[in-house]
Amino acid sequence: MTFKYENVYINDTSTITGPYERKGPLSTYFDKSYDDFYFGMKTWEQAEEKLITESVDLLLYKLARTRFDVDLHIGGDLLNQIVASNYAASTLGIPFFGIYSACATSVEGLILASNMIESKQIKNCICTASSHNNAAEKQFRYPVEYGGPKPKTDTFTTTGAASAYLSYNKRGIKVESATVGTVTDYGIKDAFHMGAVMAPAAASTLYDHLKDTKREADYYDLILTGDLGIYGRKIFKDYMKTEYGISLKNYDDTACMIFAEDNKEAYAGGSGPACAPLVTYSYIFDKMKKGELNRVLLIATGALMSPTMVNQKLSIPSIAHLISLEVTE
Amino acid sequence: MTFKYENVYINDTSTITGPYERKGPLSTYFDKSYDDFYFGMKTWEQAEEKLITESVDLLLYKLARTRFDVDLHIGGDLLNQIVASNYAASTLGIPFFGIYSACATSVEGLILASNMIESKQIKNCICTASSHNNAAEKQFRYPVEYGGPKPKTDTFTTTGAASAYLSYNKRGIKVESATVGTVTDYGIKDAFHMGAVMAPAAASTLYDHLKDTKREADYYDLILTGDLGIYGRKIFKDYMKTEYGISLKNYDDTACMIFAEDNKEAYAGGSGPACAPLVTYSYIFDKMKKGELNRVLLIATGALMSPTMVNQKLSIPSIAHLISLEVTE
Repeated sequence: MTFKYENVYINDTSTITGPYERKGPLSTYFDKSYDDFYFGMKTWEQAEEKLITESVDLLLYKLARTRFDVDLHIGGDLLNQIVASNYAASTLGIPFFGIYSACATSVEGLILASNMIESKQIKNCICTASSHNNAAEKQFRYPVEYGGPKPKTDTFTTTGAASAYLSYNKRGIKVESATVGTVTDYGIKDAFHMGAVMAPAAASTLYDHLKDTKREADYYDLILTGDLGIYGRKIFKDYMKTEYGISLKNYDDTACMIFAEDNKEAYAGGSGPACAPLVTYSYIFDKMKKGELNRVLLIATGALMSPTMVNQKLSIPSIAHLISLEVTE
Repeated sequence: MTFKYENVYINDTSTITGPYERKGPLSTYFDKSYDDFYFGMKTWEQAEEKLITESVDLLLYKLARTRFDVDLHIGGDLLNQIVASNYAASTLGIPFFGIYSACATSVEGLILASNMIESKQIKNCICTASSHNNAAEKQFRYPVEYGGPKPKTDTFTTTGAASAYLSYNKRGIKVESATVGTVTDYGIKDAFHMGAVMAPAAASTLYDHLKDTKREADYYDLILTGDLGIYGRKIFKDYMKTEYGISLKNYDDTACMIFAEDNKEAYAGGSGPACAPLVTYSYIFDKMKKGELNRVLLIATGALMSPTMVNQKLSIPSIAHLISLEVTE
């Protein structure tokens, strides 16, 4: 399912991160980074909630607007009951839609917002996505303090919140089109290799997009997957070549960009709903505004992993949603 | 945020339930009911997944369509990572958006679908919502087998899946307008009194709707809240009167309709994302088709309760989304 837009723009964005992202190569591109994991709050869940509300307030400050000027807020995160987003929405007080598609959440939000702006059902929307390393590790695997060893294919959940303000004012980055993903399941049960789980979903959505828009992959200056990591990135490229006969040249993965590639603590790279938008809204948008990139295709990838279903020995499904971003000025 | 629609219709629906709903007063209105909680599957989570796929297949059968004829599937449930919906979406293979707003999920889905149909961005959409008593109890409170006593204000999660097929074909029930809710938090911490948690959210969204549409409450033949239960229903009515000066006459709550009122096992009534659509898509739509009701306002109420946040002694936020349904033939 591919949507085409004429009148949707991401006018501005905000990015706030935790300490590991601050130590990474994109540090100077983020609006703000914290040195610890609590940000003055008592628990990690409340810390994540604070990241979201702070990123929205920062975004509104940049736009010289208030919460009362915003028609709609769409957001989600990794926590059970998307609790960080719900509590943040309670503080923000903007009409709210909660969404969940794991690390594909950011682009699901952008698509839903773009559809409503294109049709003028709303004037503007704020989309949020966030994750918190310690809160996510505790929930999906083990408390970080256990110090359990992990295989090198594992990724490291980013800590951060990324917000985008969309409207039909022709300012900023244009949302040109989008393709909604289908849930895929290739039978993979390894909860420490999300790159392998998500690569086929990314490939399937990219293939659908190129078919629906009758474009070649090199139409885009850059194709960016969300958080496949070092090994998933290779699987995805190989799979595109062998399954669909498509060679990707201008391609990278945000998981491999947010931390230094030789950072052993980050294993195969970053992950979490915050990973793709943190990199895109800061470093990539900066390159677009400077004219170094004009057409960027962002494929956010989500492993729909549930500890309950992994314990039931079921395989892990995944989904990928994509959005085409353009500089028009 | 209120949306107005001219060209959106719920063409058909399907409802499948578990054993308690089968014993209830609306039994004959459901398409199908099971006698046990497993439905031939090995676990409750997989049982809930089966309910969803079966309800979609039944809906497509009624419409003489296949999965390939459907543009979009929007769905959600109560389980962590909305796992029942994700696994069902994997089986169904329709482009999918996952959503979460607890027991307000059904109406969140209907609103998102209606917006895209009204603007002709999609031709049709299937919206699903589900819950499973045992799977939910285990996750949110204690395994049912523990037999822990509960206060009478507690509600009983319904077991069922409800699906709706929406398109711009003028057949069935018209979706006339909708209002998106804002997350509210009145400081209530009692995880066994969701009616009290959700009543202010329902009141706030209803008030916004009446203000935006310049309507009186008696414009509707019936105003229906989702799952406030016996005590929440009274709180909501009192609150509408004292806070907004609005007396509700033609009002009821689906939580109080799905089980017999004297059913001690169900405590204050039904709950779960399935409760509101199970009652609406069966019994209420039947009354609408017979001409006994013409204008119905459905306010789905969601307690955004998280065991993690309850353990952190935080209060429970809630949200309510509403949709106006009309007979036009």
